[in-house]
Amino acid sequence: MCKRGFKKITYSAISELSGISIATISRVINNSPNVREETRKMVIDAMKALGFDTSSLEAIGSKSNDLIIFNIPSLDNPFYSLIIQGAKAAAQRNGYNMLVNEDPIDEKSYDTFTDLLKKTNAAGLITTNCINRTTLLKLSAFIPMVQCCECISNMDIPFVTIDDVSAARNAVEYLISLGRKRIAFINGPLEYKYAQDRLKGYLQALEQASIKKDPEIIIQLQEISYDMAVSAAFQLLNSDQRPDAFFASSDVYAAAAIKAVRRSGLEVPKDIAIVGFDNIELSTMCTPSITTVNQPKFQLGLLSCEMLIKRISGELIPISSMYMDTELIVRETTQKPSSILSLPRS
Amino acid sequence: MCKRGFKKITYSAISELSGISIATISRVINNSPNVREETRKMVIDAMKALGFDTSSLEAIGSKSNDLIIFNIPSLDNPFYSLIIQGAKAAAQRNGYNMLVNEDPIDEKSYDTFTDLLKKTNAAGLITTNCINRTTLLKLSAFIPMVQCCECISNMDIPFVTIDDVSAARNAVEYLISLGRKRIAFINGPLEYKYAQDRLKGYLQALEQASIKKDPEIIIQLQEISYDMAVSAAFQLLNSDQRPDAFFASSDVYAAAAIKAVRRSGLEVPKDIAIVGFDNIELSTMCTPSITTVNQPKFQLGLLSCEMLIKRISGELIPISSMYMDTELIVRETTQKPSSILSLPRS
Repeated sequence: MCKRGFKKITYSAISELSGISIATISRVINNSPNVREETRKMVIDAMKALGFDTSSLEAIGSKSNDLIIFNIPSLDNPFYSLIIQGAKAAAQRNGYNMLVNEDPIDEKSYDTFTDLLKKTNAAGLITTNCINRTTLLKLSAFIPMVQCCECISNMDIPFVTIDDVSAARNAVEYLISLGRKRIAFINGPLEYKYAQDRLKGYLQALEQASIKKDPEIIIQLQEISYDMAVSAAFQLLNSDQRPDAFFASSDVYAAAAIKAVRRSGLEVPKDIAIVGFDNIELSTMCTPSITTVNQPKFQLGLLSCEMLIKRISGELIPISSMYMDTELIVRETTQKPSSILSLPRS
Repeated sequence: MCKRGFKKITYSAISELSGISIATISRVINNSPNVREETRKMVIDAMKALGFDTSSLEAIGSKSNDLIIFNIPSLDNPFYSLIIQGAKAAAQRNGYNMLVNEDPIDEKSYDTFTDLLKKTNAAGLITTNCINRTTLLKLSAFIPMVQCCECISNMDIPFVTIDDVSAARNAVEYLISLGRKRIAFINGPLEYKYAQDRLKGYLQALEQASIKKDPEIIIQLQEISYDMAVSAAFQLLNSDQRPDAFFASSDVYAAAAIKAVRRSGLEVPKDIAIVGFDNIELSTMCTPSITTVNQPKFQLGLLSCEMLIKRISGELIPISSMYMDTELIVRETTQKPSSILSLPRS
């Protein structure tokens, strides 16, 4: 259809006439399934107008089934449910189906995973996983995708996430403003970008307040586990290094800290103040309810999915990623009930 | 291929020779996508041996993509995560993919939902939804399916669930054995089979102990909502009808009862004992930790999926459904820490 040597110029011409991106035009010409029928038609019309024989393309018809796969590392983690609901709302609004897959995405699972995408004829992918750079590159060449929450930001792959560094810094500054001086940190596995960034934010807040970093009170968990967090926090509370506050990089860890404090015969927030992260339902269900950093979970999902659909449709958009705002919600783990400033739901 | 009038005899003959069920043979002959390649081959071989011309069937080839859809009513409910993990383990072990869909299944959504099953070329379906009889019948004729947990038991559609009546009765008998006499019940929407059966079990236990049923202390929620449960329980605790215990048909409701008791200035378990249901992670995260009925969630998922795969493969099995055992796990909402009999994880 396109003579070698003229390919680049031709693609540009089609792109100029149709307003469709070159990447999408390439997908139409290579008969990739991940193109919407309207888009395919626009490309074919432009090609016809430019004098190309498009009969073979027209005969094929679209194979897309308008299915989006939302991939999560673990169904155990209640953090994802509102995000998924947001993404699903955007999918439905745009006439797409969305299914959820729970799987790691790494070199080992890459073939099985892309096999699943092929078999289900998926049109696009949203990931919330921690994925290495090489695998991400391969994956984004395979299917239109958007990274949600967990991401590598300095690649040409769009993402919707929060600024974890400043969110964590604000949370720790708040604990410092309450007069706490020995603030322990319970963090998740450091391969996650969120864990690296929340650690950065924690350290920045300490530095700004001229509080010396103490590695003894930084609990670096190897897996995301409530039980491991309880024992690590309990051990710290019953050592010579007892902190006067915990900053936890998730509400599940904050709940674990509450359990450990009570088991040590201490009181929250009198002896130990606690701030969590995520504002999942658990944070209001716990007693005392957990002061936490709210992530706009529904919006994170919704915007990721809308961004993905634009990419699937081949709309001529540059890679424009997004950082969304967070807010600190003050509840009972940092202040006595009478002095609570803002207490939604609890 | 099969002459009219001889069809029934012919199907039986193929079934006898191949060991494949008549339903599956019908699916092969009607070229339904939901048949495994091995099974298709066995049917075709048997047909050949019986002197049929199978060339058109052989030309078609299998269209199955070995995809199982696991449908849940809500991703919000942490009850489903271990069940899904169990089902996924069985799927992977048998070379199937499994994706999760969150959607209601009713008359209104039926077409959209079956459209999704068609588009993804799904081989089988596991439902955990509350589905009416008519919709269930249509759905089971459309695709091989198994009901997991929530089910209608007196239909020819297989299920894997628990005996909710006896599990609830045991839980309430335990509260009675602790000397509690005014046991309130927080229950979910009555369209769910589990809610109807847990109510039955609750009433049976009261009757056996000659405790008069008091409709004033039965909280019948219209939706599955933590917030609604907190306010309903709080209202009851601050009325003339104050109970001395709560039996809750889920751990989320039990957590809500703890919150309401504390807000009323009362103590758990001294003033109010609480028993939940499900044994989700929340039950150990709460303080006090929640005494609850354990459901074998991973096994429920695993066995549902294994049963489904047998049906997809067309193995000659009768509809054999399954009730799995539950157990009461005693934690801090019913006994002081020192007297706790069994306290896994907490």
